[in-house]
Amino acid sequence: MTDKNQYVFGSRAVLEALEAGRQVDKILLKKDLTGEVVGELIQRARERDVPIQRVPLERINRVTRANHQGVLAMLAAVTYYRLEQIVPALYDDGDNPFIVVLDGVTDVRNFGAIARSADCAGVSAIVIPERGSVSVNADAVKTSAGALNYLPVCRERSLTGALKYLADSGFLIVGTSDRNAELYTQADYTGPTALVLGAEDTGISPEVMSLCRSRVKIPEFGNINSLNVSVAGGILMYEVVRQRLAAGHRVE
Amino acid sequence: MTDKNQYVFGSRAVLEALEAGRQVDKILLKKDLTGEVVGELIQRARERDVPIQRVPLERINRVTRANHQGVLAMLAAVTYYRLEQIVPALYDDGDNPFIVVLDGVTDVRNFGAIARSADCAGVSAIVIPERGSVSVNADAVKTSAGALNYLPVCRERSLTGALKYLADSGFLIVGTSDRNAELYTQADYTGPTALVLGAEDTGISPEVMSLCRSRVKIPEFGNINSLNVSVAGGILMYEVVRQRLAAGHRVE
Repeated sequence: MTDKNQYVFGSRAVLEALEAGRQVDKILLKKDLTGEVVGELIQRARERDVPIQRVPLERINRVTRANHQGVLAMLAAVTYYRLEQIVPALYDDGDNPFIVVLDGVTDVRNFGAIARSADCAGVSAIVIPERGSVSVNADAVKTSAGALNYLPVCRERSLTGALKYLADSGFLIVGTSDRNAELYTQADYTGPTALVLGAEDTGISPEVMSLCRSRVKIPEFGNINSLNVSVAGGILMYEVVRQRLAAGHRVE
Repeated sequence: MTDKNQYVFGSRAVLEALEAGRQVDKILLKKDLTGEVVGELIQRARERDVPIQRVPLERINRVTRANHQGVLAMLAAVTYYRLEQIVPALYDDGDNPFIVVLDGVTDVRNFGAIARSADCAGVSAIVIPERGSVSVNADAVKTSAGALNYLPVCRERSLTGALKYLADSGFLIVGTSDRNAELYTQADYTGPTALVLGAEDTGISPEVMSLCRSRVKIPEFGNINSLNVSVAGGILMYEVVRQRLAAGHRVE
């Protein structure tokens, strides 16, 4: 799955990639590796909000047998944005913003499918956290049917920080929940809306849920009672579209 | 992908499987194979609407190297029904039936995902054609998250015949189309509804489309403009649910 265009190895090459502003998904560093260049690299990575993972040598060897010196940077297949770059521009353009926030979605195919639906539904941007999320790699772009070439992805150090920023910017924060939730068709999405979708297994984390002003659920009537997260996402996004069209709003 | 529990081989064993009422997906017969037992087998298969494919020997060898004598039956992972067995019972139970019809969906994962959503949305049954559709095999059941263990699948020799039967039984036949279509939210699904979903690449075939009394489309506002068929299916099924709940109907 990992092709050569998706990584850079060696401490100097990775440092240069960071300084050149290449979009780096994360850096794998051999456990206990130290040194002047490595120290500089760690500092640059922190400045640029690039996560660093300390790993055993074998983990890096599994990606490449090249002379990596214990340093490997996984490149991102897309340009990451910050919400602060996106949200003011949306308001300036007179848009009625609609943002999808993913809390712990780790399956690349689900992520790609959600991005595909988001593009179709006129979503303005997708927000993912730095940690505990998918890497937006070439597989994700492919599964998204190319949507990730168009749809901005914001990667935020803190999802709760991002949601507070959105709430302060006038967004209704909506999360899906099984408990204490109203029907998803009863919330009002006609204003600026941030829709939070949770992890495939555990749903939305408690800290994130505490920031959801509206908690909604999709009713289920069958025997298995678990919609796939990408299908649930599509249903919710198009309810937003339906309400906005019914209210005579422009979508996208 | 094919495990031993999914097929029976040898002309006598396959004939016995048919006579014992085992659910057979299709039978592969070596090209030009003849004989008394084979003749009887072909007759039984026809009576039971089991498709027969004449194939080169190598095709069967790829499934098993056992002593198959040029005869292999792929077993179905579910029990197939006929619409005539399902529809009267739905009306008898006082249900407001909702049936999903798949016209040429061939991707097993998409089929499984559609079945999963259908179960959640309280769909009464899924209809597939005998030819040009997925086989409902163990992979489909797995992708459906087990929904195919509960949701009846009707396999019909003729999809147009099945739709005529549904129309005569009072169903609104709804198909998705890009041309001459109204918004999917504008059709009325509060009565008995058959929702037709088309093939991933070519959509609904012209003969089937000519039987769709209502043609609907999901609006798309992005750059790629192609929802995944299983996501589109989920959005449409839950619009049916939304309308029925809004009208105060019981769902499923």
